Amino acid sequence: MTQPKLLLLSTGGTIASVASQTGLTPGESGEDLLQTLQNLPYQIDVADILALDSSNIQPEEWRLMAEKVYQARQTYAGIVISHGTDTMAYTASMLTFMLPNLDIPVVLTGSQVPMNVLLSDAPRNLTLAFTAAASCTPGVYLAFDGKVMRGCRTVKVKTTAFDAFESVNFPPIAEVTSDGLVFRATQPAPEAPCTLNTKLDLNVSLIKLFPGFDPQILLAMAQSGCHGFVIEGYGLGGMTFIRRNVAAVIGQLSRQNIPVVAASQCLYERSDLTKYEVGRQALLEGAISAHDMTSESAITKLMWALGQGMDLAAVKAFFATDVAGEVTLS
Amino acid sequence: MTQPKLLLLSTGGTIASVASQTGLTPGESGEDLLQTLQNLPYQIDVADILALDSSNIQPEEWRLMAEKVYQARQTYAGIVISHGTDTMAYTASMLTFMLPNLDIPVVLTGSQVPMNVLLSDAPRNLTLAFTAAASCTPGVYLAFDGKVMRGCRTVKVKTTAFDAFESVNFPPIAEVTSDGLVFRATQPAPEAPCTLNTKLDLNVSLIKLFPGFDPQILLAMAQSGCHGFVIEGYGLGGMTFIRRNVAAVIGQLSRQNIPVVAASQCLYERSDLTKYEVGRQALLEGAISAHDMTSESAITKLMWALGQGMDLAAVKAFFATDVAGEVTLS
Repeated sequence: MTQPKLLLLSTGGTIASVASQTGLTPGESGEDLLQTLQNLPYQIDVADILALDSSNIQPEEWRLMAEKVYQARQTYAGIVISHGTDTMAYTASMLTFMLPNLDIPVVLTGSQVPMNVLLSDAPRNLTLAFTAAASCTPGVYLAFDGKVMRGCRTVKVKTTAFDAFESVNFPPIAEVTSDGLVFRATQPAPEAPCTLNTKLDLNVSLIKLFPGFDPQILLAMAQSGCHGFVIEGYGLGGMTFIRRNVAAVIGQLSRQNIPVVAASQCLYERSDLTKYEVGRQALLEGAISAHDMTSESAITKLMWALGQGMDLAAVKAFFATDVAGEVTLS
Repeated sequence: MTQPKLLLLSTGGTIASVASQTGLTPGESGEDLLQTLQNLPYQIDVADILALDSSNIQPEEWRLMAEKVYQARQTYAGIVISHGTDTMAYTASMLTFMLPNLDIPVVLTGSQVPMNVLLSDAPRNLTLAFTAAASCTPGVYLAFDGKVMRGCRTVKVKTTAFDAFESVNFPPIAEVTSDGLVFRATQPAPEAPCTLNTKLDLNVSLIKLFPGFDPQILLAMAQSGCHGFVIEGYGLGGMTFIRRNVAAVIGQLSRQNIPVVAASQCLYERSDLTKYEVGRQALLEGAISAHDMTSESAITKLMWALGQGMDLAAVKAFFATDVAGEVTLS
């Protein structure tokens, strides 16, 4: 049997970092990364496309990665992207939206400790990512610390520990056990030919409510050109409506055709605006529920939706649609 | 032996909620809450001071609660505050700062299910809170689901499950076991007479970075009267510095005497701006590290610090000080 042909796109991150006078900064190439791995039963090509700490990975880099994946997907059985951990969950979410009906597995990975440090988590994360790229069904994944997760469900929850990522409100797709990689859940299958669509509207804001937050700021931001908001409300998505009336401001924004997506600042579990008066008020004013999506998925989905020229009604319908497993609609 | 004299301050929340045409809304009084409890070995007085969903609890209510606690603290051995879960972690954090050297235990609690619903978590949370109010050393606590936590370390992490709160980067002070309430950690003892200080500056912002975030917004907000920022950066607190240069904008804000506190959007573990170049750049520009504080503690500490008239240097020194166990300084 011929070995599966895989591609490593290296983008920098801790995994490729080396010490410098200004702190750890990306320095190693994709080939450097591969050299530390034991012989893998795959034929692996490498392309170094970026060398950035992922705090510096931005929409321009998302576009580049999506384009590289789109171009390479007919040549390779699967693609691994080595990436810094800091914004990896954002990248994984956005690649999901930029590559509708993706027809190969694309697996992001990285590490908490640089590859060239003894006891680094890099070799096992990379090995896992290649295994996942060779064995998963099509889709965007994030492989880390023995878990292969649906990319658009991931959140970085720890700053230094090896188990830095969680799959929020959805089980990991697969986990490493003594029986090898055991699959726990599936990824929705593509329903049409894969396309590449990198049009985004970056004039969006992610707002985390706190008591005393003045909702007039939202109106000022809209006036300065903000086209859409994701608001992390409290608990199930509750919004203040006494004195500082966030719900009423959502109404004003909605009447200006500016979508406001209501998420929760709680890490786990779904938002549900129907249960409490503080959610219903926001809902009545036009808030769009993020259901159980992560904030990372919600803000990237909103950028992409507005990039397609969707108006408020279309954005609302789009957020009521499960595009690639990013949301559970009850 | 006489029974300890405790006070219940009821403020509303799910625990006191009843069904209404507009969704669940606070309706029960403190006496209603007490009636569902078994005989407790305490002498309990009740004061209904608010009847709000905690999405509507704001700085004005923080002041009221702090004043009520300050007035009652010489009459009672401990105080329980029944409170909605949504903003309870913010209230617990702010009461910590508003009541320096608090000399009795003040225990916030609430529930995920209204008291009048069968199988509600309200009776056991209230019972735990009264037990903690009668047995803890002085300080502000949050009692929930069998755990008594230092108030300024708590975060609501789940929207519906009973174990809604976590004590972040610090162990719970005490836990319910078959041996009763077992203490695991201690609370710093007051070092001076208790004071009441409710002066706040509400012109602060809590910003969660996302890739594509335009830092010019921070300058616009400062121009519109924002006096301080808490920025949830990536990972250890990294900030973008290519193209959209958040670090440089922090420098501009710092030179305007506007403090910028760098926290992490990761729920667990500390931020450390010294490790990566993306953190060092922010640090060099004047970012103030939140270390391992929660965002809830960081934003309330900043409101309080600015309310005292502190300038940038004083705020920086204040954030390098552990006031009441809210931060671990290494």
